[in-house]
Amino acid sequence: MNFGHLTIIGVGLIGGSLARALKRADVCDRIIGCARSVPELEKAVRLGVIDGFCVDPTEAVNKADMVVIAIPLGGYEQVFEQIAPALKNDTIVTDAGSVKGSIIESARRKLGRHFSRFVPGHPIAGTEKSGVEASFAELYDNHRVILTPVEETDPLALDTVRKMWETAGAGVDFMDVERHDEVLAATSHLPHVMAYSLVSTLSKMEESGDVFRFAAGGFADFTRIASSSPHMWHDIVFANREAVLDMLDRYEAGIDELKEALRNDDSEFVMNMLTEAKQARDDFADNRKRRHVDPETEEGEE
Amino acid sequence: MNFGHLTIIGVGLIGGSLARALKRADVCDRIIGCARSVPELEKAVRLGVIDGFCVDPTEAVNKADMVVIAIPLGGYEQVFEQIAPALKNDTIVTDAGSVKGSIIESARRKLGRHFSRFVPGHPIAGTEKSGVEASFAELYDNHRVILTPVEETDPLALDTVRKMWETAGAGVDFMDVERHDEVLAATSHLPHVMAYSLVSTLSKMEESGDVFRFAAGGFADFTRIASSSPHMWHDIVFANREAVLDMLDRYEAGIDELKEALRNDDSEFVMNMLTEAKQARDDFADNRKRRHVDPETEEGEE
Repeated sequence: MNFGHLTIIGVGLIGGSLARALKRADVCDRIIGCARSVPELEKAVRLGVIDGFCVDPTEAVNKADMVVIAIPLGGYEQVFEQIAPALKNDTIVTDAGSVKGSIIESARRKLGRHFSRFVPGHPIAGTEKSGVEASFAELYDNHRVILTPVEETDPLALDTVRKMWETAGAGVDFMDVERHDEVLAATSHLPHVMAYSLVSTLSKMEESGDVFRFAAGGFADFTRIASSSPHMWHDIVFANREAVLDMLDRYEAGIDELKEALRNDDSEFVMNMLTEAKQARDDFADNRKRRHVDPETEEGEE
Repeated sequence: MNFGHLTIIGVGLIGGSLARALKRADVCDRIIGCARSVPELEKAVRLGVIDGFCVDPTEAVNKADMVVIAIPLGGYEQVFEQIAPALKNDTIVTDAGSVKGSIIESARRKLGRHFSRFVPGHPIAGTEKSGVEASFAELYDNHRVILTPVEETDPLALDTVRKMWETAGAGVDFMDVERHDEVLAATSHLPHVMAYSLVSTLSKMEESGDVFRFAAGGFADFTRIASSSPHMWHDIVFANREAVLDMLDRYEAGIDELKEALRNDDSEFVMNMLTEAKQARDDFADNRKRRHVDPETEEGEE
């Protein structure tokens, strides 16, 4: 398998790691990076992540066989508009955005006749770090990538993108767009909002000096995701606003039940909630471990 | 420094690790364990954590120079009552409970004339695991222990307990009881409740299968503390109920502001909240790192 001329728009942790993984597999003729910052692009070339770069998206894609967009969600509409006129008839376009509904809407509006060769994708991988210097070839190894094709999506384009991610080390799943956005709101967007919001609440407390001084390892783990890029997360919570608001409502309803139980001395309710939650968390951890030790499933994570 | 005959009531992660740390320093004549479960105590002897054991608290303390209680909070009142008649005139009693107000009240009620030699303490260390097999001698190395003496507390007893924790590898701070319980509600009790509650909310969702399947590393870090002992956390949230409820209210107020901003398309509010939170989290992480690399301060954590 060879993916020919690949253009990656957005050479950060996600785009840069994909470039590194594909170079590791030696499956591209050439990988061109596109981004707004020339120093960042020069750094990416120096690090051997890309072979060359181009600041203008239109120009960057005119020879591409495959285009991967991996930028904060707020930039997609414009990028689709900029690349549409320059795409070849058979260029495949895919993306790595964390919310699929809003990106598919933008693509439908702006890619025109190329929309059928747009394959919406989302690699479930990342760290709290960002930027090309944080990228590494192993990021996708044994991680899942979710593709959310729509009715118009060309099966051949879909299959090529699937193979690209598998070559990069990942396992690929297909999912309905709406379900993807709901599941991700639950597993990723809600926890991020919770972590940012916790740190925000604590930093506004009178005792915030002591609070952060006496916070231990559990707190560090719990708030690690609040060190992620604010720009990226700003775009995600707005792009998936309805699902995020719905999850926040569900979550607050659970908190309110717990408060009620605490006030009413309902020891049994609290004990049951904690016990069931621990069981669910332990099952989740066991499943992760099992996937990790069983290479056949290609699902493990570090 | 020698602490003589030490009795540890509750030989789990916290009590067991203290025994191991003091054995490492060779500063006790004898360490006796006391717990309800004989098989657990036998395991502790086999692991070399304690030198012997006694199931009855009254009997377990009658030769002790120092007694350390490290059990779930719900058990303190009874243990104080059981040991009071058997304590020598100069026996020092201390504890490792996560909430200080409720324990001090129990001690005042039950220890009688020994109350002045009770030193309330709380090591800020732990993992999500429990039981003596999870204990290790290094648990307290470079961690903080907070002591919350009250007016009656004997300065000599306080000093001896401080030295014991320093010998176990920790750095010791003194704090007002109420402030301790507020700070811990913020840094520890609130995050635990949040994590348990998140897992509980997700496990009740129709899509919970996919939710846990597609949860990644960030989610694993975020929910690790929900694998802690439900019994222990049940006792903590009730023992520190007012402070926990207050923190939950503050936290929900922050979430509600964010929901409002999302609904009103208030991009600037959301961006500011995320940016300030990331800054606070990064500062916290930097401070932790600095403490860890600077051995003089003895404050680092892994």
